[in-house]
This record gives sequence, C-alpha cells and structure tokens, in this order.
Amino acid sequence: MTTEPILNKGSTAGEQHYESSNSITNGPSLPHERFGLQQFFERMGQPRIIFKLWDGFGVGSSQESIGTVTFRNRKILYQLLFSGEVAFGDGYSVGSIDIDGNLVDMLVESNVSRYQHLGIQSSFRRNPFSRFRPSNTLGRAQKNIHHHYDIGNEFYRIWLDSEMQYTCAYFPDDSLTLEAAQQAKMDHVCRKLRLQPGDKVVEAGCGWGGLARHMAKYYGANVTAYNISEEQVRYASDRAKSEGYSDQVSYVQDDYRNVVGNFDVFVSVGMLEHVGKDNYRELGNVIASCLTDEGRALIHSIGRNVPRQMSAWIDRRIFPGAYPPTLGEMMNILEPNRFSVLDIENLRLHYARTLEHWLQRFEDANKEVSETFDDNFIRAWRLYLSGSIAAFLTGGLQLFQVVFCRERNNQIPWSREHIY
Amino acid sequence: MTTEPILNKGSTAGEQHYESSNSITNGPSLPHERFGLQQFFERMGQPRIIFKLWDGFGVGSSQESIGTVTFRNRKILYQLLFSGEVAFGDGYSVGSIDIDGNLVDMLVESNVSRYQHLGIQSSFRRNPFSRFRPSNTLGRAQKNIHHHYDIGNEFYRIWLDSEMQYTCAYFPDDSLTLEAAQQAKMDHVCRKLRLQPGDKVVEAGCGWGGLARHMAKYYGANVTAYNISEEQVRYASDRAKSEGYSDQVSYVQDDYRNVVGNFDVFVSVGMLEHVGKDNYRELGNVIASCLTDEGRALIHSIGRNVPRQMSAWIDRRIFPGAYPPTLGEMMNILEPNRFSVLDIENLRLHYARTLEHWLQRFEDANKEVSETFDDNFIRAWRLYLSGSIAAFLTGGLQLFQVVFCRERNNQIPWSREHIY
Repeated sequence: MTTEPILNKGSTAGEQHYESSNSITNGPSLPHERFGLQQFFERMGQPRIIFKLWDGFGVGSSQESIGTVTFRNRKILYQLLFSGEVAFGDGYSVGSIDIDGNLVDMLVESNVSRYQHLGIQSSFRRNPFSRFRPSNTLGRAQKNIHHHYDIGNEFYRIWLDSEMQYTCAYFPDDSLTLEAAQQAKMDHVCRKLRLQPGDKVVEAGCGWGGLARHMAKYYGANVTAYNISEEQVRYASDRAKSEGYSDQVSYVQDDYRNVVGNFDVFVSVGMLEHVGKDNYRELGNVIASCLTDEGRALIHSIGRNVPRQMSAWIDRRIFPGAYPPTLGEMMNILEPNRFSVLDIENLRLHYARTLEHWLQRFEDANKEVSETFDDNFIRAWRLYLSGSIAAFLTGGLQLFQVVFCRERNNQIPWSREHIY
Repeated sequence: MTTEPILNKGSTAGEQHYESSNSITNGPSLPHERFGLQQFFERMGQPRIIFKLWDGFGVGSSQESIGTVTFRNRKILYQLLFSGEVAFGDGYSVGSIDIDGNLVDMLVESNVSRYQHLGIQSSFRRNPFSRFRPSNTLGRAQKNIHHHYDIGNEFYRIWLDSEMQYTCAYFPDDSLTLEAAQQAKMDHVCRKLRLQPGDKVVEAGCGWGGLARHMAKYYGANVTAYNISEEQVRYASDRAKSEGYSDQVSYVQDDYRNVVGNFDVFVSVGMLEHVGKDNYRELGNVIASCLTDEGRALIHSIGRNVPRQMSAWIDRRIFPGAYPPTLGEMMNILEPNRFSVLDIENLRLHYARTLEHWLQRFEDANKEVSETFDDNFIRAWRLYLSGSIAAFLTGGLQLFQVVFCRERNNQIPWSREHIY
C-alpha cells in the first residue's frame, strides 16, 4: 500500500487522465472537491487504487495501483462524501462511478486497507441508526423476501446450478464444479444430520426446494419445507411433482414461526440471515416445540466475527432486513431452550468460491439477463456479488454450520468421522 | 419415576428401616423434620431414590427406587434444608450421609428428576450470590490452583494415565483404554492445529506437561508451556529432562497473562475453566498479542449450554474459582480481537467415559490413597468424580474444543478431513 499518495492535478496527470465516455460536462473540479476526494482516500486507508474526479484530477499512487475508480460528476462525489456506501453502490449501479480494473480485487484491497486504517476498534463503533431498522414481523418478512426472491425464478436459473442452490456450496476439493459442490454441500448437511430413511424433516426457508428433494431422493426422508416466497414455493412444488417426489416432499408457503408438528430433524440453510436477531428467541422456541427428544438440528447461515449491521447499500437495494449474526448472537436461539451445540464448522472460503462461480456465470449470461433487466440492475448485481466475494475473502463475512440437539439427548455420535 | 411417594413412618417401615452402623443417638424424628424431608424430596422432583432419616423414617417408593440416601443425624438434615449442595457434599464426605446404591446412577437420576421438576426456566434463576464470587486475580489464581493441583503429584499418578492427562480423553472407538484415549485426544488436538515440525507453540495451562511432550515427540514442535502450579511444573520439567525433550519443551511457572513472544500455535487444554469470565477479554488480548498472522489456536474447556455457576460444593471444596462457560461466553475471548472460529466440537460423552475410567482407577486404588489421605478426602473425591460423570451424562456440563485463527488468515484447510 502506498504511504505517500501522489496527487495529480487536473488534466495534466498523464496516464491518470480520465476520458469520459459519456462526455458529461461538469466543469473543472474545485479546491474543496479535491480536498474531499483526498479525505475520502485517507479514510479508506490509502488503498492501492486511484480515485479520480470527472475532470481527471486523481489521488493515489499510479505505480502501485491495481485499478481506478472515477466519479463522473459532482453529484456522486457529494453523495459519497455525505452518505458513504449507499451512494457508492447506487452510483456504481447507475454508472456515475466507473471502475477500471478487477472489481473483486479492488474491493478486497479496499476492505484490507480500510481495516488497517481503522484498526480493530472500529468494530465497536456501532451504526447509530441501527436501532431504527425495523424488526422482521410476519408482514415485513413477507415483503423483504418478496423484494429479493420474487424478481423471477428465470433470473436465478440463469446463473445458479441446476438444483437452484442460492447458498454456500461445499468444495472439499477446490477444483469441483459448482454443480458438484452444491451436491456435496447437501450431502455434507445430510451426513451432519445423520439422515435416515423415513426421517421426518422440517426445513425452515427452503429456497427453490433443492435440499428437500435431495433428502427425499438420496436419503429416503419425508420433508415438510417452509418458505414465504410465493414464486419459490410454486417452482419447488411443480418440480417435486414433475420429478415424482410429491409424496415425500411437501412445500408450505408460510413463515417458519407457523411450523407445527413433530420432526426427527430440523434444518435451515440460508434462512437465518433473514430472521433478524430480535426473533432468535422465537425461532429457538419453534425448534424446541417441533423437535423430537432425540431429534437432530442444523442451522447454516452467513455470520460475522464481530456484531455489525449488513452494509447499508445491500440492506436497502439487495436484501432488506438481512442480518448476519455472530456465533455469540446465534447462541440466543439455542441457550434459552437448553440446546446443546455438537459441531460448528466455518465454510467462509467456500462461500467466496461459490460466489466466484456465480459471478462468472452471471457475467457470461449478461446478454440473456439484459433481455429482462436494465443495465443498472446488472451493475448492481455485479457489485453485490463482487462485494460478497471480497467480504468472504477478507473475513468480514463467515459461513457457519451449527449442529445441535437437546441437552438430554445421548444418542449422539462418538466422532465426526461419519461426515468424511 | 414415582409420582405418588410412599411415606414410611418411623421404624415400622419394614424394608426401608435404617440400621445405623454407627449407632448415633438422635432420638425419633419430629413432625417438622419429616415434613422437611418430604419437601426436600418434592423439590428434587421425586426421584426414584428413597431418602431416610436417622430413625428409619423414609420418603420415596420402594418398588421403583434405585438406591437409598440416609441422613444420619439431625444436624445434616437442617444443614441440607438450609444450604443445599454444600451441605450434601460435606455431609457425604464426613459420613453424615450414607448412600446405598450406585452413586453415579443415583446422581444421574437426581439430575434428571430435578430438571424435569424445575423445567427449563430454572436455568434463568441465577444464583443471587454469584456476583460476590471473587475474580481470579493473579494472586487468587495462584491460590486456587495450589488448592487443587498441589495436593501431591503422587495422588494423581495413582489414578490418571501414564501421561498424567487430567482433562477429557477422546474415544473415537469407545472400547479404547484410558491410555489410548488420552493419546488419541492429544493427536486430535495436534491434528486440529495442523501441527508441523518446527512450529513454535505456546501452551497456557500445561498440567503435568503431557501435551507439550507429545507435541515435541511426535510432531517435532517447540513448546513453551505455562502453568502456575509449582508441583506440576517441577514434575513436567523433570520428566522432559529425563525423557530427553528439554531442548524442545520449556516449562514456565507463570500465569498465562504473562505470556510473551510470537507463536505459530496457541493451545490451552483444560485451563479456561480456571480463568473466570471476568478475565476472558484479557485472555483474548494475550492470544492476539502472541499469535502470528497465520497462527492457529485451540481452546479445550468444560462448558455449559446455559450460564450457571459451578456447583457451590465443588467451588468450595474441590475447584475454587472454577467456571465452565457457555459458547456465548467464550465468544467474549474471541470477538473483541476479531478471531474467527473455524471449528467447534462437543466431546461431552467422552468426558463422562474418561471420568468413569478415573473413578474405577480411584476406587481400585482406595487402599493406596488411604495411606496419605483420610476417609473424608476419599469420599469427597468419590462424590466429585461421580457427580461429574452424572453432569456430563445428563448434559449439565459440556466439553468444547474451539479452533480459531485471525480473521484475515486465509491459510485455512478446505475441509476437516485431515483430522480423521
């Protein structure tokens, strides 16, 4: 990382001169705008990235830089200085911010340098507005999930694997294809749960129903799978019918809070992120009320090492109401019900790899996506997928699989060898 | 469990009549004493155990009982009614309480019935005095450890394995001998830490030094091992010298808070229970200050599913200052330093099995122990070992192995297969 940034003045900056392809006329940048850019660069920890204004004025070391970020007009600069990451995300989406270089590498670089600049204490500066984020009531949960998952099954089909797994895959061998790694993830989950033929399983948040189908097809389980997304449930039900599993798998369009019955297995893959920590106690009560005495349970969720709200841009534009908990926070699901943690595994780098596959498929399918969605949408999703890769690579996000059972249950394996 | 206890009045109770072998003359029990016994029985959840007074008056169903507890005098009854588990432990130790039946089975039964009686809400009734328990300052830690570990290496040698492992063994095959299971535990820890020849290891709380010797002998590591128990450090140093590892293993008689240096590996097996949760933040800071950027760390500790103080009797008589944390509490070591949890395994039933071996060896060696210690000591240790078995069998205690590293460390394995 450069310690002495080079300031390039105006259009005389040589290789750092920016040629606007859209020819937006903003006039020359003013001294306080240049100062603002410099301040922004310092706050970012002086990453090995060049930041430029519309007129070619730039900050950063050209020798060490891995890419260039250009603010194409005055408005986006002011928005960025005053509202941070939401402005950056939106600015990139609408094309007010241009990025020249590998987006993932540049996001990794900015995570690392900002972290080094702020130091670990920054994790305790909580977002003062976090308390005002609304809780996920039944109605709001429905709305949030609709926002993200009901934009069309077709869109996700383009870049997900054939089983439509929109959660972290498992790469025991990192050369696996995405298809194979998603199958391996489902097997990994089933083995951790010691799934047996005839087991009654309840799944909370089943996506497009792939895991439920997998449990029925390969393990002979009977699965009741809950999801509040109408589009996903319709897809899952249709597919189970056409593939001949509708006697073993039942998809229910309802909230996890309405789960009833008695089950040998509780499983939830990629739902906890949408639950919201105010509802953890209630989730724990639901599991406690439906799990048999010797039942096995697994929660698979994105998490954090340190409590922090989801990126404000992701929260506003991509995943409203999402919150990745720390393990300490997850214990608020388990402790009040005396559940006993048997096994926790962190698959952080597996999620980075999964996202790399998704991003590649997404880019390969840009043309197909653009038939339905505009360029702003494509840019927003590119930033979201790239930013997620960067977050998993630099440790801002984790992926925890937590296996647990009732405290008094002694029907537990003596080793985890059966998983391998 | 009986739901309708039979009350047996006085010495007319037939098979439940108690013949005092010590012929203590207390006179007949009074109505309020009988009422107190009945209340005690109800508070215990009416276990399948008969409780008797000195004069033969008994409570409980003789048909279903798995054993008999006899309070041999008035004083112990009153002590029990007013101060609970400390009185029970002390009363058993000095012989004021007699137990006829399998002690472990009876303790398991009483844990189960009391839990069913109190329900899960009881876990939130905190001990009102818990806040007054003293924190483990450097001086107090020294005193507490001296209390337990400096009662003589010879005593522990009698009933521990040859490597003097006074922590949970690992039984991947539950027919393993204790010796083999302790070796397996040390290998399990070393594999989780991906220990390599030449690794610089710091061990916090090294007991009699067995793990440090194992790491040197089988993995070629260089270990600096801390312990504040003088007797243990002397034993460990002497043994490393006589077995020829003194160039690879260095034992330091000092507190973990004084660890200095840079290490590839931090390991602590069975120390956290003695740290006290007020000191978790400081422990985390020590690890953060001594671990290299790509260092690996493991903490192995007794734990709980729900926060609760150690049994008051154990705290007073066996392990002063001990506290088994929940996973949520353990996160207070890791979160402030942005450590990333990679793997958690719960070995609860392995500790029950380990303790069964210890108890068997202890009982087999009663004669040898009695050459140094009196009968009260032997009875106290029998109760402590038996009660610990019961706690692990019924889920009151857990055994967590937590593997972690720095957040930014991407040199982590893609699977846990290397452990198996």
